[in-house]
Amino acid sequence: MVYELFYWPEIQGRGEFIRLVLEDVGADYVDVGRLPASRGGGYKRLVSALEGELAPYAFALPVLRADSIVVAQTALITRFLGERHGLAPEGERERLAAATVALTIADLVSEAHDTHHPISVEQYYEQQKPAARKRAQAFRSKRIPKFLSYLEGILAANGDSLVGRSVSYVDLAAFQVVAGLRYAFPVTMAKLEPEYPRLVALHDRIAERPRLATYLASERRLPFSNEGIFRRYPELDAPAPRRNQRRTATKKPRKRRRK
Amino acid sequence: MVYELFYWPEIQGRGEFIRLVLEDVGADYVDVGRLPASRGGGYKRLVSALEGELAPYAFALPVLRADSIVVAQTALITRFLGERHGLAPEGERERLAAATVALTIADLVSEAHDTHHPISVEQYYEQQKPAARKRAQAFRSKRIPKFLSYLEGILAANGDSLVGRSVSYVDLAAFQVVAGLRYAFPVTMAKLEPEYPRLVALHDRIAERPRLATYLASERRLPFSNEGIFRRYPELDAPAPRRNQRRTATKKPRKRRRK
Repeated sequence: MVYELFYWPEIQGRGEFIRLVLEDVGADYVDVGRLPASRGGGYKRLVSALEGELAPYAFALPVLRADSIVVAQTALITRFLGERHGLAPEGERERLAAATVALTIADLVSEAHDTHHPISVEQYYEQQKPAARKRAQAFRSKRIPKFLSYLEGILAANGDSLVGRSVSYVDLAAFQVVAGLRYAFPVTMAKLEPEYPRLVALHDRIAERPRLATYLASERRLPFSNEGIFRRYPELDAPAPRRNQRRTATKKPRKRRRK
Repeated sequence: MVYELFYWPEIQGRGEFIRLVLEDVGADYVDVGRLPASRGGGYKRLVSALEGELAPYAFALPVLRADSIVVAQTALITRFLGERHGLAPEGERERLAAATVALTIADLVSEAHDTHHPISVEQYYEQQKPAARKRAQAFRSKRIPKFLSYLEGILAANGDSLVGRSVSYVDLAAFQVVAGLRYAFPVTMAKLEPEYPRLVALHDRIAERPRLATYLASERRLPFSNEGIFRRYPELDAPAPRRNQRRTATKKPRKRRRK
């Protein structure tokens, strides 16, 4: 059987979490969107697949098809693949822990996305820059540290991998968010990374896994870009200019718990 | 075994999706946060549990504990309970379809949350009202219809339940989002609902399930409120005032695909 990954062809985006798992387990797969249109690939095929052959359960890409099985939602797809190919812990308790981490990383990814699209996915970044700057500031100062501390804390408790005794799909996801955050927020990450040595070391170990090292050096690994989830807009990485700083400093943020 | 649900005691919030499943299957459970402090409940216990007994895998509430199993992330918890108690389809293909729907509904819930918190969860709604108004407008005009069409389309394809031949935990989740959207966006929903008759009918059928009907009429069902995920701020439900309408009308939103 050949897996079919349906995802936008020009970007890493959410699809990259799935590509990493497929590559690491050496799965036989087709990256449908990246095929030429003559072989059933391209943008039009993806859109018509979402409305047709992948309906009714897939709401958005990425979607994975494995024969008659259609799975959407990144964290669910990576869990599905990981458990099928020995890239997941055994046992219910640890499988649920892994799924919990995968979904928490998915939340981090969504929040990274919303730094450049805080108002609407239907509009360009350039149409929502003032809100983006504010959301990015909160993301840099509160959310990145909170998520990275969470991952670091798991590694401190569990050892060299996030769940169980060996590498699983969630370690690959952790690698990808570190890489993505480094691309999007280089100034912020340079400052923060020394506080998360276990996570940085995990990132480096994952990058050296033989199949992944080959993949990452290949043309199959698309570059990060400002069309993807992790985007490098210097104004979203830098501290606010002085005038704004003074203005926001008067509004002292009060603690809120997450609902 | 008694399930322990860890969630904020005063709100429906994300915890409500789990309460509905626990109630519908007649599970023996404790809503830990709602116990008096003298019996191990209350806000302090929840915070210390997150940092202690529920660590390291739970990032945020809600969290469910079942003996030595700790699960976080709403969609994962409801799947776990649903599959254990016959409130989920059988078979891998349909279980994955159900999990896909549950996670898509979770995305809708997060987007509903972000209408009142588009900038930062660390600040109050009142500190982010201008962005909230814009995000809510996009949510009302684009996202609610997109998500509700998705659910309606599934029902059109599958019948009286979202996945498989009988009611599952995702049907309960669909009930809850319809109820929540009605609370938060009554004007918008009154206008939109006629377009989604199957979804509205599903909502009504779920509300009539004997155990849920008892629960919904009981004090265990907390009221919706402006402390939860679905909040009723009339300014986020109403069309923008005329001056804003004219201004946004000049910026014609261009289509963007979701990453």
